[in-house]
Amino acid sequence: MVSRNITFQSLNGSYLFPEVLRRKLAFQQQFPHEKILSLGIGDTTEPLPGVVSQVLADKSLMFSSPEGYSGYGPDLGNMELRKKIAEVIYQNTVDWQEIVISDGSKCDIARLQLLFGSQVKIGVQDPAYPVYVEGSLLNGVKQPVFLPCTPENNFFPDLRNAALCDLLYFCSPNNPTGAVATREQLQELVDTAKKNKQIIIFDAAYSFFIQDEHLPRSIFEIEGAREVAIETHSFSKIAGFTGLRLGWTVVPHQLKYCSGESVKKDWERLVNTTFNGASTLVQQGGIAALSPEGLSEIKKTIEHYLENGRMLFNALKDKYQVYGGTHSPYLWVNVGKPSWEAFDDFLHTYKIVTTPGGGFGPAGEGFLRFSAFGNRKTVQEAIERL
Amino acid sequence: MVSRNITFQSLNGSYLFPEVLRRKLAFQQQFPHEKILSLGIGDTTEPLPGVVSQVLADKSLMFSSPEGYSGYGPDLGNMELRKKIAEVIYQNTVDWQEIVISDGSKCDIARLQLLFGSQVKIGVQDPAYPVYVEGSLLNGVKQPVFLPCTPENNFFPDLRNAALCDLLYFCSPNNPTGAVATREQLQELVDTAKKNKQIIIFDAAYSFFIQDEHLPRSIFEIEGAREVAIETHSFSKIAGFTGLRLGWTVVPHQLKYCSGESVKKDWERLVNTTFNGASTLVQQGGIAALSPEGLSEIKKTIEHYLENGRMLFNALKDKYQVYGGTHSPYLWVNVGKPSWEAFDDFLHTYKIVTTPGGGFGPAGEGFLRFSAFGNRKTVQEAIERL
Repeated sequence: MVSRNITFQSLNGSYLFPEVLRRKLAFQQQFPHEKILSLGIGDTTEPLPGVVSQVLADKSLMFSSPEGYSGYGPDLGNMELRKKIAEVIYQNTVDWQEIVISDGSKCDIARLQLLFGSQVKIGVQDPAYPVYVEGSLLNGVKQPVFLPCTPENNFFPDLRNAALCDLLYFCSPNNPTGAVATREQLQELVDTAKKNKQIIIFDAAYSFFIQDEHLPRSIFEIEGAREVAIETHSFSKIAGFTGLRLGWTVVPHQLKYCSGESVKKDWERLVNTTFNGASTLVQQGGIAALSPEGLSEIKKTIEHYLENGRMLFNALKDKYQVYGGTHSPYLWVNVGKPSWEAFDDFLHTYKIVTTPGGGFGPAGEGFLRFSAFGNRKTVQEAIERL
Repeated sequence: MVSRNITFQSLNGSYLFPEVLRRKLAFQQQFPHEKILSLGIGDTTEPLPGVVSQVLADKSLMFSSPEGYSGYGPDLGNMELRKKIAEVIYQNTVDWQEIVISDGSKCDIARLQLLFGSQVKIGVQDPAYPVYVEGSLLNGVKQPVFLPCTPENNFFPDLRNAALCDLLYFCSPNNPTGAVATREQLQELVDTAKKNKQIIIFDAAYSFFIQDEHLPRSIFEIEGAREVAIETHSFSKIAGFTGLRLGWTVVPHQLKYCSGESVKKDWERLVNTTFNGASTLVQQGGIAALSPEGLSEIKKTIEHYLENGRMLFNALKDKYQVYGGTHSPYLWVNVGKPSWEAFDDFLHTYKIVTTPGGGFGPAGEGFLRFSAFGNRKTVQEAIERL
């Protein structure tokens, strides 16, 4: 007698982005001649760096020769890639052995949720990427503590409300609000976590969009973070790997449970048991992305998306209160009405797909998220319609 | 205060295959001039089909042009690939919409364990692929019911011992014993599951090694299976995708919880929430693997591994009781002593890496698993040493 896992009862019927897609397709079916513009899901549109494509192609051809073929990759990831990430992303302030390669942040977040189990209390920024909450609920965790991040508190939560939490999810640059935490704010986060003996799961997937050197790109730039934080990261938004699937997670040597046991050791055990690594081919592409040529192309692509963001910001700012979009690919727009209603309005009036703020948490109601991922023509056309 | 997840206490210190690798490397360090031959981990050694490499290379190059680039793939997998699997693997007896693409069986098994949650009772063949048990334990499930599969019962378990289980893991051709269940045996499995209202998780990762048309390659060839079974499958062992990462799982429309609700609906919700799909590039390789040219190359590769198996069987059969190796890449060898001791013997005496049977469950003690994955020279040299 197999009963339905009780955890599903705590979830909404459908995950946010497929529901956005479903409404888009329904509209398209109803009005087949309308040209819909997508500023909804944060999907990359600009080509891969040429050097990445070339390496992928070369390695692909090698795979069909006896000398060039290889099977399973190393269980925690390609060593060259791990070292390259330590060097290029962390200037070797992180040990490459603290980096485990994955097929992307979402998947690693699900594995981290399994790591900590069903008995932890979690705190999340509200609004936040839905996976933090929904993955936790699926894993049997109780309803999280929502920490509102609103224009009133400058999108930085009152951490006193999370004093009893075990795990804190924190994303900067933030999805969906586009807010970037300052060094002082992250220091407060780390100090509080230390005081309360909490672990921070820091999602840095959008760190490359930060253009101001004074703003921290990694939680590990903050004093004391190595004792309280895990960082997840991804090639998706920085190098167009949304489809290829590649990311990583850093679990520092110093991170311990209250018993003093190593979190990293369990993490590696769990990765061994539930995962077989990111595609070895794609990992080669990751190495190429972090080469000087790769990085220089990435810089241009990020600049392209940021320019999209500036254009959208300027087009929206006279009608609405707009946040984000400066060191982030997301704009957070106060539309002053229920967000699915606003979503439908924009779809029907302007034929533009956005993402309803309420899908990111209760404090997201009244907002729409606009994504600056898109080619220039789409963005220009959207601006004309607006 | 973050406590260690209690589930880790029920696991061994390390996952089986990294431990095998660790001992191999330790030996190599001690005796740097010895040439070690690997017949341990079931890792493919023969090149990818040429048509797969070519498609991967072509698509890789396209990814760096604005026209050829694409971002996130469809949430449940590339439709062409899903349709191709339905057609080629299941002769359209399975609806393509029942197939969800994954990055491999191990990862999908972990997701299935999350799907059914921590309250289910599980039954596993003993010996079995360690992930069934360890992934379940990690997920908070209680110790499973082990169903011994030994020479005495012809490697088919007494299903009466699993009458109170909710989920039954079953793998055929079996890893590690190499046993292939007959049609009658699988019918008994399905009928029993139906009677006891159980769900079977059928692992068909080695189905391409079955050369006898009378032996079932899929649980869905069995009458009634669509109401009680899920099938996981993989491109790893059939087309050399161990490093590339590609697989799929079939959850039939008819599969229901005891409440009558659809399992498939929850499965898709879970995949949406915890996973972002197999690499879109690798999925293109999967489509090519199932083309007529791909399939013809796959056939030759499988025949190569099977010939390795026959050679190893002949080399071992005079000294030991040997099972498997006929419709399977694995030989199951009764060495009549504790299996880690036998592992160390083979490593030190013959410089051959195997896998200790005890790592697959209590009934695996006294056995070693030999893998027939290897190039011909390695296998020939191993045979000479033996």
